[in-house]
Amino acid sequence: MIKNKKVNAAILIIGNEILSGRTQDTNTTTIALWLNSIGVKVQEVRVIPDVEDTIIDTVNHLKKVNDYVFTTGGIGPTHDDITAESISKAFNLKYKIHKEAFKILEVYYKPGEFNEGRQKMVWMPENANLILNPTSGAPGFNVENVFCLPGVPSILKSMLGGLKNKIVGGDPILSHTISLRTVESEIAQSLTNVQNNNKDTEIGSYPFFQAGKLGVSIVIRSEKKSKIDECSVQILNFVEKMNIEVVDR
Amino acid sequence: MIKNKKVNAAILIIGNEILSGRTQDTNTTTIALWLNSIGVKVQEVRVIPDVEDTIIDTVNHLKKVNDYVFTTGGIGPTHDDITAESISKAFNLKYKIHKEAFKILEVYYKPGEFNEGRQKMVWMPENANLILNPTSGAPGFNVENVFCLPGVPSILKSMLGGLKNKIVGGDPILSHTISLRTVESEIAQSLTNVQNNNKDTEIGSYPFFQAGKLGVSIVIRSEKKSKIDECSVQILNFVEKMNIEVVDR
Repeated sequence: MIKNKKVNAAILIIGNEILSGRTQDTNTTTIALWLNSIGVKVQEVRVIPDVEDTIIDTVNHLKKVNDYVFTTGGIGPTHDDITAESISKAFNLKYKIHKEAFKILEVYYKPGEFNEGRQKMVWMPENANLILNPTSGAPGFNVENVFCLPGVPSILKSMLGGLKNKIVGGDPILSHTISLRTVESEIAQSLTNVQNNNKDTEIGSYPFFQAGKLGVSIVIRSEKKSKIDECSVQILNFVEKMNIEVVDR
Repeated sequence: MIKNKKVNAAILIIGNEILSGRTQDTNTTTIALWLNSIGVKVQEVRVIPDVEDTIIDTVNHLKKVNDYVFTTGGIGPTHDDITAESISKAFNLKYKIHKEAFKILEVYYKPGEFNEGRQKMVWMPENANLILNPTSGAPGFNVENVFCLPGVPSILKSMLGGLKNKIVGGDPILSHTISLRTVESEIAQSLTNVQNNNKDTEIGSYPFFQAGKLGVSIVIRSEKKSKIDECSVQILNFVEKMNIEVVDR
């Protein structure tokens, strides 16, 4: 992949516990912020159940329309961990013991502790590349542009550093926030004008409520710092004319 | 829709701020827990950007394959709030001022405060049904099986109560958790056996780390209490034989 082009990713959260509301997903935020910092934009997130056909179909679709796909969840030792086998089927690869992963866990566990349950975690798509896990031993893996990470947030976080060299991003996506003491409806028209004058820059408007006061954060996002600066000037221009207090810029 | 059938829903989170990692979505959990309680199972969640074509295509797909679709975000007064117009296009309906919504906000705001920016919030698909908003006035709406809610979590929460009569759920989805002082790999095989003997019951296994100790929560989900009881007995059976401490049951 060439630098200076837009690079997109999808995040696929696999797990009934997210869909049932039992568990609050935080991996999306973790992965998205990290991808932003290396110039990859998340264009879609999906949360799906632990159902083989659903995983296969969704992975096959997402890997075609995105530069990268990151899955979380379903790579542990229990019966509901079916991500590795499903990914094998999605890529028409054998699902088998990964020798390198086996060696890693053989060393990681004390003698006798690398039991049958744990050995399930080294079954992977044939010739998958490992993603090392400095927290709890069991590696993630990647096949082509699909990267499979665990669901436990602290473990997932610890594995992203080792992934960096495998992902080729574009220009980092820069972001600038201007926080105003106003309400959205007051600035809606002026902000629309700025957006219309800068169609290739992403401008978002988000109300906030802090220390008992209402406000609006305007978030400007672009790969080009000059674009962000231009929009900032235009926004601060109308803000000054309207006599609106700037809380943060 | 008939009682005692399975009723499914999709949640569609609309907003660049979730995809960029700036904002942590919590609406999925709120909606999923509420839907569970009225017998509706969330089978898919998608997060998509504020892009009209993407919203239209995704809504048109999700409304076909789910009994209900709940969208969050994009119904405020600013330029990046394009959900109502996109839903109009998805259903081939006119996008126009909703008279009832107009009256509600005319009364809600002080004289002179119902300005052009705020009036954008009463533009909706023609003949949409309103979802009342006890927190901040501006209603959500629904067209056929698609329900459009705001993105601000506190406002969204306050609107769910008023929705209840519009959603016909199946039997409530019951859930029971057994927490054990063990690790997943120890119980993986025994748990697989229980799952194989009870294929129509959803059994999930989730490691936890609490007060310095590792544990595993087993979550059993079904519409039938008898099924949950059966699985519980079978699980507590092997747990006793293996001499594993039960933390909570």
